[in-house]
Amino acid sequence: MTTSNLPTAAVLLIGDELLSGRTRDINLQQIAEFLAPLGIPVKESRTVSDTQADIVEAVNALRSKYTYVFTTGGIGPTHDDITADAIAAAFGVGIGENPEAMAILESRYAETNIELTEARRRMGRTPDGAKLVANAVSGAPGFQMENVFTMAGVPSIARAMLEDIGPRLETGAVVHSVTVRAPGLREGDIAAELGKLSAEMEDVSFGSYPWFRSIEDSGVHLVARTIRDDLIASIETKLSEIVVRQGRTPEVVKQRA
Amino acid sequence: MTTSNLPTAAVLLIGDELLSGRTRDINLQQIAEFLAPLGIPVKESRTVSDTQADIVEAVNALRSKYTYVFTTGGIGPTHDDITADAIAAAFGVGIGENPEAMAILESRYAETNIELTEARRRMGRTPDGAKLVANAVSGAPGFQMENVFTMAGVPSIARAMLEDIGPRLETGAVVHSVTVRAPGLREGDIAAELGKLSAEMEDVSFGSYPWFRSIEDSGVHLVARTIRDDLIASIETKLSEIVVRQGRTPEVVKQRA
Repeated sequence: MTTSNLPTAAVLLIGDELLSGRTRDINLQQIAEFLAPLGIPVKESRTVSDTQADIVEAVNALRSKYTYVFTTGGIGPTHDDITADAIAAAFGVGIGENPEAMAILESRYAETNIELTEARRRMGRTPDGAKLVANAVSGAPGFQMENVFTMAGVPSIARAMLEDIGPRLETGAVVHSVTVRAPGLREGDIAAELGKLSAEMEDVSFGSYPWFRSIEDSGVHLVARTIRDDLIASIETKLSEIVVRQGRTPEVVKQRA
Repeated sequence: MTTSNLPTAAVLLIGDELLSGRTRDINLQQIAEFLAPLGIPVKESRTVSDTQADIVEAVNALRSKYTYVFTTGGIGPTHDDITADAIAAAFGVGIGENPEAMAILESRYAETNIELTEARRRMGRTPDGAKLVANAVSGAPGFQMENVFTMAGVPSIARAMLEDIGPRLETGAVVHSVTVRAPGLREGDIAAELGKLSAEMEDVSFGSYPWFRSIEDSGVHLVARTIRDDLIASIETKLSEIVVRQGRTPEVVKQRA
């Protein structure tokens, strides 16, 4: 657990397919987007392979450092789905069929007339002492062990599991953000002014993110994040003025950054 | 450095925008895809914020554990670009303007008639003892410190830097793969057979990746990876047979997995 008063989160993405390049992860982004309005910033993410020792090491490093850990991947029915065993090992507890999880699987497979094979029964195993996380998409649940939430890797299922987890989380201070888009601007032109503004406003985190699609379509997004809602209007003005002083036209983007 | 004979890699993605959900990373995937034909598997990836202590801790953990570390992000001209300083701190060396890097920047900005501001000169700073990594896209170089390669976060620039880094890498055993697509199949139906095949073929790593777009458009990709090129044809047959035994039609996918 963190010693600060504000909750923090880490994400642990589990799967050979993410490290081989076969699959491009989207779960880190969707978890961050889910947690942001709850005031729980993601501070670190790790991606490891389907190897027990690697999962155990990462889970233990992260759960002692952050308020919450969210894992994705490796809870299906096949031989490479070893996340539940690894979480049990990380917590030094046993693992076995969870009666509540088995009841969900039995009812789900009975409804759909699909055989509940030995392999599928593996999806009802949880570390001893785990609480279930509901899976509104395909039935087989995730689970919670203390501050660690274990979710599916399939993005639609992970998203559904977050909905079940949300009410269990202690919320923090919501981060507000401003994004000013500046077509034609180059980072080097505003770096000094942006750095000065950043030094002046300690409660605000400023970032600049260039894009280059072509010579004609390039520019910079200036982004500010703060829990101080009262500062948003003045930040928007200051960032816009920086862009105007470079002879460019600022566009305030009305979306989360 | 790893103690094994085969080279390994880790990726360190640096940037608040990746953890806030603003940006969905693509560099892990493109680095993995670049390294795969060189026989250098990515074994771990971490994502950290633009905070020196976090970057230093991750760089030092990864560079002692893997043959190579590839970092992306944080080497632009603005105040939040602190990666070069953090790498210097991780190696316990100083940092300063690199004459070779400054010559590249001076020539580049003279050509394009853009002022080489104080902020832009920051992009010519490298940790003491660094070798440069060429940036064919926008000039400002990355750099190499021992087994750590520091690259830009903009994907097109990171891609160009990998081309310059490639010849410096010791290559390993290339991993070959087979992907069999099985529309309509469910993981639980083939988990037992796939687990048995995995236990029989120790030199091969098997994975199964379900997709669910809708009831009509769902299925499983069965993927096998091995450095044993001579096994590929028989694996393709065995995986196809597993699918056929479930009354489904296997489709061999002719692309890297």
